[in-house]
Amino acid sequence: MTKDVNLMEKIVSLCKRRGFVYPNSEIYGGFAGFWNYGHYGVILKENIKHLWKQRFIFDREDMFVTDTSIISNPKVLEASGHVANFGSEIFKTEVGTGEDTTVSHLRAETAQGIFVDFKTVIDSHHPKLPFGVGQIGKAFRNEISPRDFIFRQREFEQMEVEYFVKEAEWEKYFDMWRETMNRFATEIGVTIHELDVPIEDRAHYSKRTIDFQFDYPFGRGELWGLAYRTDFDLKNHGLDYFDEDKGERIVPHVIEPSLGVDRSILAVLASSYIEDELGGEKRVYLKLPKSIAPVRAAVFPLLKNKPELVKKAREVFLNLKSQIPNLEFDDNGNIGKRYRRQDEIGTPYCITIDFDTLTDDTVTVRDRDSGKQERIAVSALISKIRPQ
Amino acid sequence: MTKDVNLMEKIVSLCKRRGFVYPNSEIYGGFAGFWNYGHYGVILKENIKHLWKQRFIFDREDMFVTDTSIISNPKVLEASGHVANFGSEIFKTEVGTGEDTTVSHLRAETAQGIFVDFKTVIDSHHPKLPFGVGQIGKAFRNEISPRDFIFRQREFEQMEVEYFVKEAEWEKYFDMWRETMNRFATEIGVTIHELDVPIEDRAHYSKRTIDFQFDYPFGRGELWGLAYRTDFDLKNHGLDYFDEDKGERIVPHVIEPSLGVDRSILAVLASSYIEDELGGEKRVYLKLPKSIAPVRAAVFPLLKNKPELVKKAREVFLNLKSQIPNLEFDDNGNIGKRYRRQDEIGTPYCITIDFDTLTDDTVTVRDRDSGKQERIAVSALISKIRPQ
Repeated sequence: MTKDVNLMEKIVSLCKRRGFVYPNSEIYGGFAGFWNYGHYGVILKENIKHLWKQRFIFDREDMFVTDTSIISNPKVLEASGHVANFGSEIFKTEVGTGEDTTVSHLRAETAQGIFVDFKTVIDSHHPKLPFGVGQIGKAFRNEISPRDFIFRQREFEQMEVEYFVKEAEWEKYFDMWRETMNRFATEIGVTIHELDVPIEDRAHYSKRTIDFQFDYPFGRGELWGLAYRTDFDLKNHGLDYFDEDKGERIVPHVIEPSLGVDRSILAVLASSYIEDELGGEKRVYLKLPKSIAPVRAAVFPLLKNKPELVKKAREVFLNLKSQIPNLEFDDNGNIGKRYRRQDEIGTPYCITIDFDTLTDDTVTVRDRDSGKQERIAVSALISKIRPQ
Repeated sequence: MTKDVNLMEKIVSLCKRRGFVYPNSEIYGGFAGFWNYGHYGVILKENIKHLWKQRFIFDREDMFVTDTSIISNPKVLEASGHVANFGSEIFKTEVGTGEDTTVSHLRAETAQGIFVDFKTVIDSHHPKLPFGVGQIGKAFRNEISPRDFIFRQREFEQMEVEYFVKEAEWEKYFDMWRETMNRFATEIGVTIHELDVPIEDRAHYSKRTIDFQFDYPFGRGELWGLAYRTDFDLKNHGLDYFDEDKGERIVPHVIEPSLGVDRSILAVLASSYIEDELGGEKRVYLKLPKSIAPVRAAVFPLLKNKPELVKKAREVFLNLKSQIPNLEFDDNGNIGKRYRRQDEIGTPYCITIDFDTLTDDTVTVRDRDSGKQERIAVSALISKIRPQ
């Protein structure tokens, strides 16, 4: 575990400079615990969420999705134990007016919405155990000391699954989700360290919890969690399930893989931030996995003031963009400046149209990580840069 | 304008039965103004948001995206005029603890986050006028009488663009976005009615507003809005832009196409809900545009208890799914029941594997709208059902 305060500053600076993450309300002096995502930050976030949806929901056939509201009937957070145990940590607000006013709280986790809708999912889809429900959404905690950039925020986003199993099978499915989480970490380029949480540190309802930790620039800390929540939550809400095999009502047990969106982004940025030397000059680049890089490839004319180059570059760009949407066209500044910009955004490929292109229909493709350029035919571009 | 209270009840009932939209906290008696999206509702919503992102942001080269927090420094909503003009309509909450407590409000529109980040976008991307910034996100209004299903909620989602122009060019770009909105309505299968809002009904800062209205089951009402907000908001926040052509600082003017996500979904459902007769029996189906239908196609074995049919059906299903992710496999109940279910979800195609498939590798493909079946080769399925 190394502590590199400079690295954190460098990441925060790059995020602001290039439009990944901005301090919230910066023109009014900021607001502790709140951050805004800029253009490339939104796209990186969408790509990570999309990958999660594929791996945790749509690649499977035993999963459903839901999107429940941030504010709920106060009975939800009373039954879940949140108001009694974490009342001071959740944002209070009043719903309705006059005599009709109800005090409620912004949710502190997306999980409760899934539990409360358990019966509606059963009624709509009649799923057999095991099955799960996933949700991506905002959650809020009034942290006393928000800190470390987007690591500890007061408003953040979660990707959670509640997976319902028969009690006797919990270990099998706990291991299944553990593997899914490990594969997901590999896919987004993040090295995780599993910590089996000892009983005294676990939430009282959990019989087993694994913290998936990451070595942030400020030290090792929690990234994701995998918890065996037993039947605690469904019981709290008085919910059960008719087991056709046994011919009786049972309360399913719950495995919960819970992933923070913002922490995933921080881990991805910290893992991909690299400083090296290229052609005798220092450079910074984000070695993002291609599947989540905000821009797949950038297309440049070598010179901006040569209409024939710009025309050809636009042609190549528009043709590619019809098949690969996340492309960028850039003719600002000189070519070195454009490379530096795309490196800092983490763009895997830069395609340059030069005078040779006009005669032999070939272009240079520069690889982000090695900085090496190869000359290939325009007709070969799609298969070179297309997502696998 | 026709008022069909029954239609609304039928839509609400279908939404609950099939897992599109559920009342929030239903096991605790619900909560007025709040709704949860179920499995197919989430996917329909994602598809509509995805299409909006393509048409309003990524098909263009003059647009950026942002994702700003729901809670901000209170100075944002003070400067915007929200606290003075709509203080009673926005949810209040306290941020921080003890002496460090700040009173803030949940945002009532996503727009202000875009304005406040205007300078950061300029610094990161150096865009030339005209350019725009789009955002999708939750907003909150403490409506006195939430009603009409997901039409008037207290928690809802918006898709907004703030498009920054030189004052002299506002009409040209107002018309451009008006066309974009009309095309988008056509693409999601919704008929809109434009209403040029008279001066006495416009927000005080707007010099022109068009309401895009829709004939809901309860009558004609607002669906989307297009407003020329002048330089009102940027001025409120003390923001400006260096115009390189003029060599001076100017305050850009703003065109705002604002779309409600939930109202779009309600309009899509109301437009696609159809009752007809097929083979002498009444049926209900959602005539959703193929591009936004939650399930692209469903694959069935004719009989569940014939292993050779199920095996072949799984083969066909898995092969298709590797190329078209939003597919469903269904072997529950009889084939008529499966058709009824897929009709109500709005699935354009149902593919049935029968005994002939085992010998000649052909399947039946049933068209949702006509109910007609045609027999085609398994090898021709991809091109038949693939999104255009």
